[in-house]
Amino acid sequence: MGESAERDARHQARMQRKKAVVDEKIAAARDEYGLLLVHTGNGKGKSSSAFGMVARALGHGLKVGVVQFIKGAASTGEEAFFRRFPEQVRYHVMGEGFTWETQDRQRDIARAAEAWAVARALLADPDIALVVLDELNIALKYGYLELDAVLADIQARPAMQHVVVTGRGAPPGLVEAADTVTEMALVKHAFQAGVKAQQGIEF
Amino acid sequence: MGESAERDARHQARMQRKKAVVDEKIAAARDEYGLLLVHTGNGKGKSSSAFGMVARALGHGLKVGVVQFIKGAASTGEEAFFRRFPEQVRYHVMGEGFTWETQDRQRDIARAAEAWAVARALLADPDIALVVLDELNIALKYGYLELDAVLADIQARPAMQHVVVTGRGAPPGLVEAADTVTEMALVKHAFQAGVKAQQGIEF
Repeated sequence: MGESAERDARHQARMQRKKAVVDEKIAAARDEYGLLLVHTGNGKGKSSSAFGMVARALGHGLKVGVVQFIKGAASTGEEAFFRRFPEQVRYHVMGEGFTWETQDRQRDIARAAEAWAVARALLADPDIALVVLDELNIALKYGYLELDAVLADIQARPAMQHVVVTGRGAPPGLVEAADTVTEMALVKHAFQAGVKAQQGIEF
Repeated sequence: MGESAERDARHQARMQRKKAVVDEKIAAARDEYGLLLVHTGNGKGKSSSAFGMVARALGHGLKVGVVQFIKGAASTGEEAFFRRFPEQVRYHVMGEGFTWETQDRQRDIARAAEAWAVARALLADPDIALVVLDELNIALKYGYLELDAVLADIQARPAMQHVVVTGRGAPPGLVEAADTVTEMALVKHAFQAGVKAQQGIEF
């Protein structure tokens, strides 16, 4: 077989495999299952979009779990608000603020492990329709948590449970595993123009 | 010094430099005033991020106004949820669904004008800390509303009031006038792989 014919055959085999994958996806198109969503990028809206989804889920009478991995130092408006609904929302704030505030890597690692234990419990609970893992990407980026272990727990969750992971710098393995990935890109930001972070907007 | 201790020390030095930069930026940002934020792009999270900000504002005890310009046809989870707080949220659903549903341009223009009259009232009320103009960009893109008139009303609002405008295809004049603009970019979407739009995630 000549080089060209061999190349054609390889191409055909590859296209057949691709068609099989596409056909399988189309066949699966009717399925409903829990999605893994990732909100990343340098722009605003990664966390607030996840919290908008929490409001949406609560509107549908669903139960929600939230784990905030990093922002624990500041009491945010979302936390104050969603804690008003203890029957529908399990809200956990872990960590002790951003890493440039703590400046202690070993303590950050220990806190991240504690936070993940809480997340695992939510990811194992079929009554929870939506799990928000806020700023998990930061904990992964700094190596505070192992991606493989995190992904294994996420993939072992109940079939109908949705998971949203937020934070800058989502690792490629997480993007690969996700169903839906949105990059919030900064076009311009008032902070660049010297405006203070403001209550109700930034925190 | 062992490898791990060295890594920790490097981490600490890096975080100290980062904290100095962040602190300097915060000190430099003296002004506080109401911001105009725009959420645009083809990705997810434009509206849900605005609704996350609503939750945040409610957590701070602030009052919020919402005008949904286009999505009126569907009763969403957010609407069901935020209507539970009539003392804090003025929630207006205008329009009659997406334009490819109505297929009547003159009716859409009339509905957009009615919606803008409601928005103007919110933009004139200093008790409202945050006004969400959901899918306003679509009404502007189709020419249902005049950008100049819309911007004049937005710019005449109370000094401390924040405004969030959402929707694909934000017009350049709006981006120019905005303090903060985020483009939600689609990296990948479960719908591309054939998954049905799901309650609590898409609507």
